[in-house]
Amino acid sequence: MIKVGIVGGTGYTGVELLRILINHADVELSVITSRGDAGTRVDAMFPSLRGFVNLSFTEPETDALAQCDVVFFATPHAVAMHSMPELIERGVRVVDLSADFRIKDIALWEAWYGCEHVCPDLVADAVYGLPETNREAIRTAQLVAAPGCYPTAVQLGLLPLLENKLVHTDSLIANAASGASGAGKSAKISSLFAEVNENFKAYAVNGHRHLPEIEQGLQLVSDTPVNLTFVPHLIPMTRGIHSTAYARLVDKNTSLEQVHELFVQRYAAEPFVDVMPLSSMPETRSVSGANHCRIALFKPQDRDQIVVLSVVDNLVKGASGQAVQAMNIMFGFDERAGLGIVPLSP
Amino acid sequence: MIKVGIVGGTGYTGVELLRILINHADVELSVITSRGDAGTRVDAMFPSLRGFVNLSFTEPETDALAQCDVVFFATPHAVAMHSMPELIERGVRVVDLSADFRIKDIALWEAWYGCEHVCPDLVADAVYGLPETNREAIRTAQLVAAPGCYPTAVQLGLLPLLENKLVHTDSLIANAASGASGAGKSAKISSLFAEVNENFKAYAVNGHRHLPEIEQGLQLVSDTPVNLTFVPHLIPMTRGIHSTAYARLVDKNTSLEQVHELFVQRYAAEPFVDVMPLSSMPETRSVSGANHCRIALFKPQDRDQIVVLSVVDNLVKGASGQAVQAMNIMFGFDERAGLGIVPLSP
Amino acid sequence: MIKVGIVGGTGYTGVELLRILINHADVELSVITSRGDAGTRVDAMFPSLRGFVNLSFTEPETDALAQCDVVFFATPHAVAMHSMPELIERGVRVVDLSADFRIKDIALWEAWYGCEHVCPDLVADAVYGLPETNREAIRTAQLVAAPGCYPTAVQLGLLPLLENKLVHTDSLIANAASGASGAGKSAKISSLFAEVNENFKAYAVNGHRHLPEIEQGLQLVSDTPVNLTFVPHLIPMTRGIHSTAYARLVDKNTSLEQVHELFVQRYAAEPFVDVMPLSSMPETRSVSGANHCRIALFKPQDRDQIVVLSVVDNLVKGASGQAVQAMNIMFGFDERAGLGIVPLSP
Amino acid sequence: MIKVGIVGGTGYTGVELLRILINHADVELSVITSRGDAGTRVDAMFPSLRGFVNLSFTEPETDALAQCDVVFFATPHAVAMHSMPELIERGVRVVDLSADFRIKDIALWEAWYGCEHVCPDLVADAVYGLPETNREAIRTAQLVAAPGCYPTAVQLGLLPLLENKLVHTDSLIANAASGASGAGKSAKISSLFAEVNENFKAYAVNGHRHLPEIEQGLQLVSDTPVNLTFVPHLIPMTRGIHSTAYARLVDKNTSLEQVHELFVQRYAAEPFVDVMPLSSMPETRSVSGANHCRIALFKPQDRDQIVVLSVVDNLVKGASGQAVQAMNIMFGFDERAGLGIVPLSP
Repeated sequence: MIKVGIVGGTGYTGVELLRILINHADVELSVITSRGDAGTRVDAMFPSLRGFVNLSFTEPETDALAQCDVVFFATPHAVAMHSMPELIERGVRVVDLSADFRIKDIALWEAWYGCEHVCPDLVADAVYGLPETNREAIRTAQLVAAPGCYPTAVQLGLLPLLENKLVHTDSLIANAASGASGAGKSAKISSLFAEVNENFKAYAVNGHRHLPEIEQGLQLVSDTPVNLTFVPHLIPMTRGIHSTAYARLVDKNTSLEQVHELFVQRYAAEPFVDVMPLSSMPETRSVSGANHCRIALFKPQDRDQIVVLSVVDNLVKGASGQAVQAMNIMFGFDERAGLGIVPLSP
Repeated sequence: MIKVGIVGGTGYTGVELLRILINHADVELSVITSRGDAGTRVDAMFPSLRGFVNLSFTEPETDALAQCDVVFFATPHAVAMHSMPELIERGVRVVDLSADFRIKDIALWEAWYGCEHVCPDLVADAVYGLPETNREAIRTAQLVAAPGCYPTAVQLGLLPLLENKLVHTDSLIANAASGASGAGKSAKISSLFAEVNENFKAYAVNGHRHLPEIEQGLQLVSDTPVNLTFVPHLIPMTRGIHSTAYARLVDKNTSLEQVHELFVQRYAAEPFVDVMPLSSMPETRSVSGANHCRIALFKPQDRDQIVVLSVVDNLVKGASGQAVQAMNIMFGFDERAGLGIVPLSP
Repeated sequence: MIKVGIVGGTGYTGVELLRILINHADVELSVITSRGDAGTRVDAMFPSLRGFVNLSFTEPETDALAQCDVVFFATPHAVAMHSMPELIERGVRVVDLSADFRIKDIALWEAWYGCEHVCPDLVADAVYGLPETNREAIRTAQLVAAPGCYPTAVQLGLLPLLENKLVHTDSLIANAASGASGAGKSAKISSLFAEVNENFKAYAVNGHRHLPEIEQGLQLVSDTPVNLTFVPHLIPMTRGIHSTAYARLVDKNTSLEQVHELFVQRYAAEPFVDVMPLSSMPETRSVSGANHCRIALFKPQDRDQIVVLSVVDNLVKGASGQAVQAMNIMFGFDERAGLGIVPLSP
Repeated sequence: MIKVGIVGGTGYTGVELLRILINHADVELSVITSRGDAGTRVDAMFPSLRGFVNLSFTEPETDALAQCDVVFFATPHAVAMHSMPELIERGVRVVDLSADFRIKDIALWEAWYGCEHVCPDLVADAVYGLPETNREAIRTAQLVAAPGCYPTAVQLGLLPLLENKLVHTDSLIANAASGASGAGKSAKISSLFAEVNENFKAYAVNGHRHLPEIEQGLQLVSDTPVNLTFVPHLIPMTRGIHSTAYARLVDKNTSLEQVHELFVQRYAAEPFVDVMPLSSMPETRSVSGANHCRIALFKPQDRDQIVVLSVVDNLVKGASGQAVQAMNIMFGFDERAGLGIVPLSP
């Protein structure tokens, strides 16, 4: 039984960590902080947790956090990096769900996030928390940078193509779409129900912060330069990410069956990646509330484009579930512990 | 470990039974039948269950079902009653999620459901499966008639008022609303997305089949005649029932605090009924995917009307979850077994 | 051709006024103000108006507004009252869509809105802008207080019952529900898509500001004291209000047909009130984008309760459409001018 | 004033034709047919039209239709072609909203639609009803084949690129998404609210019937072979199509400003195509209920991909509105007649 702390527990990834950890047999929730809501009972803010959680939010204090075995940061970007050096020094293991430690190139991070990084040394030590590529490094990591939601869906969908050098890497496309919870629980006009409902649109077409993260991850497995055109869209629904990725085959005679078989093998041992049978089309609700990523493959009209469809729940495999999966690996628990949640459908 | 069979597993209550039972440590899913889809893998129809269920649908055959310890009927009304006599004779215990055994007055049932009942004797033996009123009878029942979704929300909200003779029973009102999954997984124009979305309407105002069921339940605890005006509405969402019930106090000086205290006591030992603090307003998503009923009480402008708000997930406490709760009671399991699911919110 | 000004044009009722007035042959849009967005093109904020409107928002200046024939206030409460004395003195006619001039009892208004009224004299002169009860007074009014959205739906549904003394007025119930645009275009957590979607809840059960407005309107046509229990709910959709009102017949032998006939006669000459045939159930989308109110009547189980269902589009008959209808009456235009919009369905 | 007939008026494009034509000053609705609902009042099926339409559905009889000046077919594919020869012979002008006369290559049509074409000669004479490419031919056409919804959005987005030979035509991608009304008003499980809501998925990835139509249209303006990868998705909303098209520049130095200027010029005289300013991102609701197509252009990271975003309302510019626009051209009316509807937003 380990002690767990959560920093920034009032947002959607915070309550999602709680939802998952409540049924995790190996952890005890010790601390959950919120600068703005210290003193409020957690279940007063989240009535869905009435009967499940007895904690109240507390001020974020390093001493309390330092007594945890692991601390999750469910904060906006540029918050976790300020607390990290002290926590790391005091030996706490950390899973950061924010973007602060994902990008290895500090200048690139600073350009995309518009501020100076305060602890670049820790970025170098941080382990990118995608178990499907980094399981061994996560096992011993002190600081895990959990991947973003889009990057999880897009990378899991494209990695086997690049690892096997099947496609041209200079013209990759990821047309992705996310439910509105991806924008977080912050009071913005653009996130209002009356703005999002019965509406569909692209956003950040000129450049979304997840682009450099995805390109970094793909470049690691490619000898040739990776250029990704990434266009995110906003779906009038709460949860779920759907990525439709397009990649041109180097050899247009490579059959869909060959590609499919490579995906099946690549993910055969992965507890949370499901390569669906040919002709399947994954739907976002098939992973709603669960930590799975489902992937399907097409080669339309038998031309030279491979189309990879992949879905995750942005709050689970795209955030809190993946963070718990990393924690399980870090502490030697069954990697599935707490993550046996069956998707909610319909 | 008991063997479980499900008849009519292709509808929404069927897949919901699966979702719950997958994580129930004491049961083994043995048989799931579907006349129309025999031979189809369950996870081909419900991709959300890929990785969780290995069964295929089979033809509904009594021999296979008779080897189960308990059989759930997740069928439309007027189906279960045809199979029931033989199953009962062969000693199988049954939880029927349909309406066939809920109404004790056979003539009333036949009037509302428009067909003849084929085994009225079994109706007499059947136990109405609302644990909060019938726990002891459920324990030893062979045939449990699980309550309808609206009746669960409305009865749990009104019962303490009637048990304590606090209100006039001749002018009760239940203004209720349900998500679209309540209409089941059948191909009807009126259930199409383009018909339900961005729309709200009442339906069956002249008489919904759940009215006699609710009145029967309320009359059991009242000396005076119960007259309920019940108006259901259709909400553009998938899951959830919200009941707003109105009852006039016999003594308008009865305080809200007194009424609240009676509710708190009435449900103190109930694992799945949550009487919320004064001033709370329950929202349907606070029970989404979970077996809870949350209740709140108001006395607007301190006049003589008590307003009772209650919410359930129509597919869980309003159907499959309640059926599993009954099963747990019948077999002496922890009543919460398999039902520790934390609501999905947002 | 009259000159029209709009104060506070950046909210949902503001853009709705524009949508309607663009196709109104007798008006010219002269001024649209916004303190926060002065200088911004209207169609930059509302892309739906690209190609229809050439104006930019300007600072709210009395001189510019005073040159209009009519000014609409589409502002939050407690804003219009500050500008009103000067505009009235300069002879401008005004339709106020906010609550500032709806309640005749100043103390009551101040209690519900939590601030002091700065021009109570103008409240006395203001005409409540419900054409179905006040058409003649509107014709000559200088200041019209357009009704709230709930009050429109509830009053149109209940007025004929009270005018004809058919029901007990001490125990009226209005169970109403609104789409999320009713909360306005303001950045609040509770209005976020991820909070409203796939969710249903009551709110303001202890007292909604529309309650005194409705009771005032109903009391005007009743000799006996009016007590209304009013419970609003939030629907996961953008537009529409549905009211389900319950009233007990004084004489339970009054037939539904009699009541229906009275409604038909009462509204026979009304261009925007549709009393539907018996057994109809109005749906909110049947008035989406249009100025109609549709009403249906029931007497369930032939007991003593009359159930009145009424629907309006909260942004049209519940706000901007009704305001334009009032303007049409004030200026002697065809009352339907600009309001011939056919509802959008599906 | 011309007489108009509608065949198959009970579906979503049928009611949409009515919604538009009700406010069209130059037409009189004469006949609306429905094989299944003959005798039913139109406003009994579509309560949104109460007060606007007095017609009842009639059996589809050629004699009645032959007395119309123009007949719209709002039928599923493979219906209109059976009535067409006789109507054409009797001199009626026809706008067919179905797919029967869109594809010039009969064998291709038969392969995609799975049945034999009964009047291939008329296909040769039919004019593809996209005003932006075919206005002059439409003017004198007797039979107009109105384009499909996806083809409208995708072609309007890509045509200027191909007409100006700016991009490689062998690797075009159109990632598109549609609201659920695109599936029509037919009772299918996959179109149920509980299946579509809170869900997003691709469909028909291996080949959607709109693919050959789009490729035919694009090939007409290209010297080089056109290969389009077209992946449609289903959005949990009712109305709207969003196309995100990707095309590689032949000369990667072509600037976004140059491309944008070509689009602006190409559509300068088009009443219903809106090329938005640079950096705009069109949203589907900005055309909801209206006949506009809005287009925006991007060149992410200044690499070699041009991204074209285009939106239409699938039931208006993607179906009934475009059909009325064609009718206006055919009869020499103002092309905007009846189509001055302002989009409904929010």
